[in-house]
Amino acid sequence: MPTLSVFMDVPLAHKLEGSLLKTYKQDDCPHKMFLAYRVCMTNEGHPWVSLVVQKTRLQISQDPSLDYEYLPTMGLKSFIQASLELLFGKHSQAIVENRVAGVHTVGDSGAFQLGVQFLRAWHKDARIVYIISSQKELHGLVFQDMGFTVCEYSIWDPKKLCVDPDILLNVVESKQIFPFFDIPCQGLYTGDLEEDTRILQYFVSQGFEFFCSQSLSKNFGIYDEGVGILVVVAVNNQQLLGVLSQLKGLAEALWLNPPNTGARIITSILCNPALLAEWKQSLKEVVENIMLTKEKVKEKLRLLGTPGSWGHITEQSGTHGYLGLNSQQVEYLVRKKHIYIPKNSQINFSCINANNINYITEGINEAVLLSEGSEICLPKEKKP
Amino acid sequence: MPTLSVFMDVPLAHKLEGSLLKTYKQDDCPHKMFLAYRVCMTNEGHPWVSLVVQKTRLQISQDPSLDYEYLPTMGLKSFIQASLELLFGKHSQAIVENRVAGVHTVGDSGAFQLGVQFLRAWHKDARIVYIISSQKELHGLVFQDMGFTVCEYSIWDPKKLCVDPDILLNVVESKQIFPFFDIPCQGLYTGDLEEDTRILQYFVSQGFEFFCSQSLSKNFGIYDEGVGILVVVAVNNQQLLGVLSQLKGLAEALWLNPPNTGARIITSILCNPALLAEWKQSLKEVVENIMLTKEKVKEKLRLLGTPGSWGHITEQSGTHGYLGLNSQQVEYLVRKKHIYIPKNSQINFSCINANNINYITEGINEAVLLSEGSEICLPKEKKP
Repeated sequence: MPTLSVFMDVPLAHKLEGSLLKTYKQDDCPHKMFLAYRVCMTNEGHPWVSLVVQKTRLQISQDPSLDYEYLPTMGLKSFIQASLELLFGKHSQAIVENRVAGVHTVGDSGAFQLGVQFLRAWHKDARIVYIISSQKELHGLVFQDMGFTVCEYSIWDPKKLCVDPDILLNVVESKQIFPFFDIPCQGLYTGDLEEDTRILQYFVSQGFEFFCSQSLSKNFGIYDEGVGILVVVAVNNQQLLGVLSQLKGLAEALWLNPPNTGARIITSILCNPALLAEWKQSLKEVVENIMLTKEKVKEKLRLLGTPGSWGHITEQSGTHGYLGLNSQQVEYLVRKKHIYIPKNSQINFSCINANNINYITEGINEAVLLSEGSEICLPKEKKP
Repeated sequence: MPTLSVFMDVPLAHKLEGSLLKTYKQDDCPHKMFLAYRVCMTNEGHPWVSLVVQKTRLQISQDPSLDYEYLPTMGLKSFIQASLELLFGKHSQAIVENRVAGVHTVGDSGAFQLGVQFLRAWHKDARIVYIISSQKELHGLVFQDMGFTVCEYSIWDPKKLCVDPDILLNVVESKQIFPFFDIPCQGLYTGDLEEDTRILQYFVSQGFEFFCSQSLSKNFGIYDEGVGILVVVAVNNQQLLGVLSQLKGLAEALWLNPPNTGARIITSILCNPALLAEWKQSLKEVVENIMLTKEKVKEKLRLLGTPGSWGHITEQSGTHGYLGLNSQQVEYLVRKKHIYIPKNSQINFSCINANNINYITEGINEAVLLSEGSEICLPKEKKP
């Protein structure tokens, strides 16, 4: 009988530094709140689910003609096709030219894992990854674990108080970077499915090759099923087939068969015009609701007389947006008000609702007033 | 605009040599048949599904109290607990002593991927993997891809026409091997859930540490959802916690959240005495049906006057069993009769049904008669 553990040398893993959610969970304050959830929240504070999903789920479970057999390693074909058409448009030149394809993955994390494994094996010269700063904790670690050097890159201009996508384009073009896009919630940005993937259309039109992680979890509200696709765009079909064959080998080792339930629900919706229309309508309603919340936040800050211009709040699209606070102000909100927001002040506006909007805007007001005051106390920097 | 593909150097992946299923699929012969499916098949030739699963699935889809939020990275707690109790028994000493735990994975492939990643990182001296031969194609490749040397090991004694588990025990004990078990379909071996994991109880009682891939897909008939667990048994709780914390980091990078649907169905069944009894009964019926098939095969061969003793067919438990044919006989069945069976002649007896049993037994009879004949024609080997 063995006496020593073979796991003797295995230490407790280091906890992630700066995991905001973890700190939030450990906070005992009864009025704590977390404004950085990845997913869209309802006014009641629950993850949003499109109503058409519930209906379709029930319908599927009552269909005796369906089987529950293993999906092929590359996934549910009809799901991939419908999702690619959603991403690029039905008449996309790249689809017509057979140079775009997708591998059905276990969520967007699975898509990144698969894509990064491929890049490590077949793109060996590339060792540096430039990543949008807000994504580092989520996906940057996957690159880091595989030996890439991850550099953070911000597209938020804190002086102009706006997002500058040109920064991204210039980098990709000048540094010959291989783009790996993340489309986490198409339709929940502007409420318009086509508008939300305009950047992809641009790169396709310019003949770029790229990977893209497409998540269908958040824009349908199927969080527990990992509905993702690793999208591959190549210059031609021959190159595409080579990449796909290698990806298949990697996916076989990773999970062999991707999960079916979420993909089946989504395919049923995307391929049925009536259900599709219902889903699109539900996206629009969510986005309108978020815009309304942003308007309210801006108006509350105006009424409180909070110093500064807050127009940038309503100028940004999507669930997530920058508040435009500095690190001192963010720290005040987290430490003193128990309002958990990331250092770059990019919050999920759908976390704000009628129950917490007053507390949040008053907190922002206090934070700004206090830091304004402390700035006055500091000696001004000399200009050169 | 880029002109050259960044994927230029990516070749088409080599196809797996000896993939029996691939050859079968490419065969145009109308009466071809495949007797090596991993899962239990019905008499109609479809993957088996326990009836209680369908009922529970419907019930779950109609339950408005359920949410569809992300599962924690380690998975659905109630699912893991119920599955571990199924594997080790409710009153298992290891469970009581808090030195066994599980990580909810994307199927058994995911469990192997996770376990192998851990072993590569934390068990660096171990470079050689001994694997039961029939599992090589499925799981051995995961070890191989990660740089392990994989040696095949057979527990089938072709002379005595029986499986000899002592071979396995002796190897593990003498070579200080870290055991990584595969329990792909508990209950479908003998029909008795406890009996089917007796080997695990033995290793636990001897104080061994081990990993085990537990699949719940095949014994419930939920194939498309990847319901797996990587089970960890350590000598004490402290070692266990270290291992779990490292596994969590690996699972975060792999898929972040495991899929829920299958796990939810299984938990509902395992935690409800009436549903549990129904499920157990369905397993018994399957196993009885397989035993009946084996009896019929043996009887048909007897009636055909096939040379040899065929008692070993009914002496083996489970869906899969060795026919006890040599490579020449197997080749005859594959090439001439289009009956696809693996080289070691281990077939899935649930693939045999009223429609194909005559063709299969006649094929076996021919193969044996022909090789008997050819042996007579060959000059006998000189004994030393």
